[in-house]
Amino acid sequence: MTRKKTTFVPLQSVTVLDPFFSRIQDTVIRTMIPYQERVLNDEVPDVPASHAIRNYRIAAGLETGTFYGFVFQDSDLAKWLEAVACSLAVHPDKALEERADAWIGLVEAAQQEDGYLNTYFTVAEPEHRWENLADCHELYCAGHMIEAGVAYYQATGKDRLLKVVCRLADHIEKRFAGEGKPGIPGHPEIELALMRLYHLTGERKYLELAKLFIDRRGQKPDYFRQEREQSSWQKFNYSMKASRYYMQNHLPLREQTSVEGHAVRCMYLLTGAADVAAETEDEELMEACRRLWKNMAERRMYLTGGIGSTGYGEAFTRDFDLPNDSAYAETCASVGVCFFARQMLEAEPSRVYADILERELYNGTISGMQLDGTKFFYINQLEADPAMSGEVYGTEEYSPERIGWYNCACCPPNLARLMTSLGGYLWSVEKRTADDEKSGGENPGTKAGDIAKPAAGSEDIIYSHLFIGNRAKLPAAGGVEITLTGNYPWEGDFTYEVNTEAEEAYFTLAIRQPAWCSPLSIRWKDEAGNIHSGENFSDGESGRLCSGGILRGEESLRFEDAGGYWLLRRKWHSGDTVQVHMELPVRRVYADPRVKADAGCVALMRGPVVYAFEGVDNGENLSACRIPKDAEIRAFEYDPDLLEGVVRLEAEGRRAVPADDFLYSPEAPREVPVHLTAIPYYAWCNRGKTQMRVWMRE
Amino acid sequence: MTRKKTTFVPLQSVTVLDPFFSRIQDTVIRTMIPYQERVLNDEVPDVPASHAIRNYRIAAGLETGTFYGFVFQDSDLAKWLEAVACSLAVHPDKALEERADAWIGLVEAAQQEDGYLNTYFTVAEPEHRWENLADCHELYCAGHMIEAGVAYYQATGKDRLLKVVCRLADHIEKRFAGEGKPGIPGHPEIELALMRLYHLTGERKYLELAKLFIDRRGQKPDYFRQEREQSSWQKFNYSMKASRYYMQNHLPLREQTSVEGHAVRCMYLLTGAADVAAETEDEELMEACRRLWKNMAERRMYLTGGIGSTGYGEAFTRDFDLPNDSAYAETCASVGVCFFARQMLEAEPSRVYADILERELYNGTISGMQLDGTKFFYINQLEADPAMSGEVYGTEEYSPERIGWYNCACCPPNLARLMTSLGGYLWSVEKRTADDEKSGGENPGTKAGDIAKPAAGSEDIIYSHLFIGNRAKLPAAGGVEITLTGNYPWEGDFTYEVNTEAEEAYFTLAIRQPAWCSPLSIRWKDEAGNIHSGENFSDGESGRLCSGGILRGEESLRFEDAGGYWLLRRKWHSGDTVQVHMELPVRRVYADPRVKADAGCVALMRGPVVYAFEGVDNGENLSACRIPKDAEIRAFEYDPDLLEGVVRLEAEGRRAVPADDFLYSPEAPREVPVHLTAIPYYAWCNRGKTQMRVWMRE
Repeated sequence: MTRKKTTFVPLQSVTVLDPFFSRIQDTVIRTMIPYQERVLNDEVPDVPASHAIRNYRIAAGLETGTFYGFVFQDSDLAKWLEAVACSLAVHPDKALEERADAWIGLVEAAQQEDGYLNTYFTVAEPEHRWENLADCHELYCAGHMIEAGVAYYQATGKDRLLKVVCRLADHIEKRFAGEGKPGIPGHPEIELALMRLYHLTGERKYLELAKLFIDRRGQKPDYFRQEREQSSWQKFNYSMKASRYYMQNHLPLREQTSVEGHAVRCMYLLTGAADVAAETEDEELMEACRRLWKNMAERRMYLTGGIGSTGYGEAFTRDFDLPNDSAYAETCASVGVCFFARQMLEAEPSRVYADILERELYNGTISGMQLDGTKFFYINQLEADPAMSGEVYGTEEYSPERIGWYNCACCPPNLARLMTSLGGYLWSVEKRTADDEKSGGENPGTKAGDIAKPAAGSEDIIYSHLFIGNRAKLPAAGGVEITLTGNYPWEGDFTYEVNTEAEEAYFTLAIRQPAWCSPLSIRWKDEAGNIHSGENFSDGESGRLCSGGILRGEESLRFEDAGGYWLLRRKWHSGDTVQVHMELPVRRVYADPRVKADAGCVALMRGPVVYAFEGVDNGENLSACRIPKDAEIRAFEYDPDLLEGVVRLEAEGRRAVPADDFLYSPEAPREVPVHLTAIPYYAWCNRGKTQMRVWMRE
Repeated sequence: MTRKKTTFVPLQSVTVLDPFFSRIQDTVIRTMIPYQERVLNDEVPDVPASHAIRNYRIAAGLETGTFYGFVFQDSDLAKWLEAVACSLAVHPDKALEERADAWIGLVEAAQQEDGYLNTYFTVAEPEHRWENLADCHELYCAGHMIEAGVAYYQATGKDRLLKVVCRLADHIEKRFAGEGKPGIPGHPEIELALMRLYHLTGERKYLELAKLFIDRRGQKPDYFRQEREQSSWQKFNYSMKASRYYMQNHLPLREQTSVEGHAVRCMYLLTGAADVAAETEDEELMEACRRLWKNMAERRMYLTGGIGSTGYGEAFTRDFDLPNDSAYAETCASVGVCFFARQMLEAEPSRVYADILERELYNGTISGMQLDGTKFFYINQLEADPAMSGEVYGTEEYSPERIGWYNCACCPPNLARLMTSLGGYLWSVEKRTADDEKSGGENPGTKAGDIAKPAAGSEDIIYSHLFIGNRAKLPAAGGVEITLTGNYPWEGDFTYEVNTEAEEAYFTLAIRQPAWCSPLSIRWKDEAGNIHSGENFSDGESGRLCSGGILRGEESLRFEDAGGYWLLRRKWHSGDTVQVHMELPVRRVYADPRVKADAGCVALMRGPVVYAFEGVDNGENLSACRIPKDAEIRAFEYDPDLLEGVVRLEAEGRRAVPADDFLYSPEAPREVPVHLTAIPYYAWCNRGKTQMRVWMRE
């Protein structure tokens, strides 16, 4: 039941060929990754010194000096190495690989005899290893390096870093596994990393250690309090000021009912937990993951996918508390949602997860980077005012523009690894045996006679989760290659072209219909040249379905209500195509009235893209503008010259004008017509400092 | 030109007899003042220890121990003594006076040989006197004790504390006046206090020292930076983190164009500056006061009179930045606006100042106290949610309920002294000589023959600034007593009854027509028994006038556009009455569209009273409610049993209801009718923790 239903097709089998994301991947590979390497090596003059690589050199004894940076500075290099691994998987680059090999050599050299690896403690306070798990991020840094080791091996076949991280994981296992060896990480990450190492190596101890860290969380007595009381070393004590919620330590995860505390920590924890739950068939834990997903997606998420609405603790607050101007919505938190979504989607394919994943990819993650890949947002507000952000005491963290680097530089490399690993988010395969078939269950089109000769793999289902153009080699039905082409998110037509290794292959192609999309129609030809089609209406974001699919001849098409996927089960030959058509009208979107900040307001979306209004197009004081209910909203043709290519929207709105010198007046402000232009949210702030709003009064 | 046009009639000459404020004064006198004394003396078990009196005992050598509390803890006793003085002036109380005398003896005992008085430095760090003016509040505490000394002398005729504070002021004068003795207070207050001492004693050196502190402010080099650099004593350094704006030290006051920084400091500074400007006929300085008043009142003030919209530095932010839920609007800052308003009003009578003074008195000041006088708000939000305030990390300062005392206990005694000194805000008198008359100018009704026999004082103008019921002895036209009776703010009818010491008296009675009030009508009988009347329309808050007054016979009535006062000039006899009638309809009020937080919203007022909607009456999730433009709003009869007596409002509104489980939906939320009730803002949160909003969507 909780075993993963599907397995994601790895990055290495997928080539992203997408007008939208290939440009971004290219920017990441050509600009961000080399830029970040130079930052980590302190070669960029105008950004805060990173010192990350120098810390490793000092720890390795290759240089003298003192540690500099955050106690989690190591993780920047780890995330960068992971991004490089993903980059090499999709775009081989000998020179980059050689340099990465050299940095890996440095990491290896910084590892201690006993497997321990952390430059802060090695350089600065070797006597205090593992003494302050609440604040010191040792397990967090270890987790990131483990992820890098796994990714680098998968991308290049080279196991030098993998061996380093196995020794590190073994060291951690010795230190924490078993009775009398308490401890949990202040910042979750190790759990999901250990699971990745387990999936690669098959070493069950890594799975068990991940599970241990998850199960120990939120137990009494409070581990963090204990370690604080037992240690005289109180150098770092940020966590003292934070509540137990901050580190998701307020309750055992299985008992938690809402996502709480530091949003990135929460997402990383849940990603690891969902993996452990599926792998160990732990239904209770999986149910907790579903419950927390639901709370997050239905109560605590911005329209853009942003989570963690306050900068205080970079944290969740309360259900429906989603202020736009003080939105924190850290880029890393949105990246974390992608991890969690992918994990849930793999276990139980459903658009409940895939729609949010898509929301993140087209909005809340990529808003974190400038279009040219050189500057970044850590915070992703949904309403911004350069006269306030960073200007008024108390808004220091809110930058009115993306900036070149951050002292706390978690977000840029996190984006780099997400964007380079995109290919790994597109397809997952459900392998079904004849036994699966006999036991009934959720198999589509099971009418007798549908499929003449069931063969090995004939019941496999290939899930297409996202509409990102790509060519993928799929381990199903004896080997299938599918090419998806289109111009999403700007256009709603795309084509799946199938090539089979065998002369013919039976399998089911599952295509997601986003909840906001209605209708979605599918057309394909059968062997005899007859055209088949299906169409399905849903009522938008709410995801309720109005009609099912159709079924003809030996081929079958069915819409699976529960998951929100079309299932097209047939005999395929090389060259077969499936045409998908989605309508992409501009949609007015409303928030639940319990969201105070959005009361009386409307936002505009088209496909998965959330739109925003900028001062540069609409004049300042955007809060004085509104889009009346009856105002027509026009989507323009795709403009390749605007913001690296976007579809912009226009509407005839109204703007309230100040009447006189009086702050308060018995007369409602007079309104004048105003021509409003909206651009995709992710592309805001690429034309200088300007006001911005997603939600407009209606 | 800048010399004060009028002089306020002192508290001692006015007896407040007002259904609204007498109750509050009574609460302050019977409950707050004794309660605060017990707090200051550490006799109340469940509130934070004050230690204020013990600090004095230790400084006086009567007790051993260490200083405890804020470095400005002394000011709490000083403000309390000032409140006692005002209380004794309006309500003699021998036992209280005896206790106050004893505390004054203690203060005297704590004063040092050289006149220095500050328990922190005397007890804890005598070697660091005057070394850190930025943070240490020595001049601030001195200022408050000087105010207390002046008030206590005026109320009781006893000069013991006055002598103490004269010695203190002399000590300060020696330390700071003259070349090579730099220094300005981090927290203004000494300036206005020295002016009070100057007005009482006539000692010009106090005026000159006040002027010096004002003129030195904002000069280069930055004094605070200098003192920091020159001292190795860095114990207190809050100001280091704050900008020069925080302490109004960014520019010379004469060059400042907007109210900036810590709102209370700014108000205290401007109160002193306005006094100095008028007294020294310094038009440049007075013009700066007018300019800053205008910026405050027209750009940076909440509808309730609250100022300082952010808790970061308890400060002003930007023009039109007036968020409701994170409004800081410190009680003390509203009290400070009253001081500043009174000073400006005295110099140049105008409803520009008096309307705001009234706004503060009926809203933003008294919202700081529970109706029973035992609990207090430091922060006065215009929108509150107990699920957030104090509950969510980052909102610690925002209490969902008034509390018994504050560690930083500036507000409760500040309210106590304001409420007990209310009598001093009601009347001011412009003494006019025959010379004034000859030189022309702004004298009303100067037609030849209007007044048959001009006598001494016949050109005096008595300004009635507020409609608070009272009986006052006025030093005009040879001695006049006026009794004002009414039931304001609930009813708009009131009567002025005049008694003259002479058989007849010539003078002008000036009655303010608030800008929001239209029409206001006035009726009176002349000697012959003929009834005269005048009526004036204005278009509400904006204050534009639609008609002038009328003029009949030897009596003259004129509406003075510039100041917004009716001027009734006539021959008066004892027993003469003037009837005033104001319409008090419920008013919908709108904010300038540049106020983002209020866009699309309406607030309700009636008379000077701002209304608020509470969850306890209207259900939670108030942001889902709105008051459509065409909804009728009813004002109920005065209800003596509700909230110590209020007029409540009701309207038929609409409430958006959550539609389904989806956070975002393509359908606008469905609305249902909702019966909405509003109560006066100042009275909110007297029926338990509840949501509250002033601004409602329209």
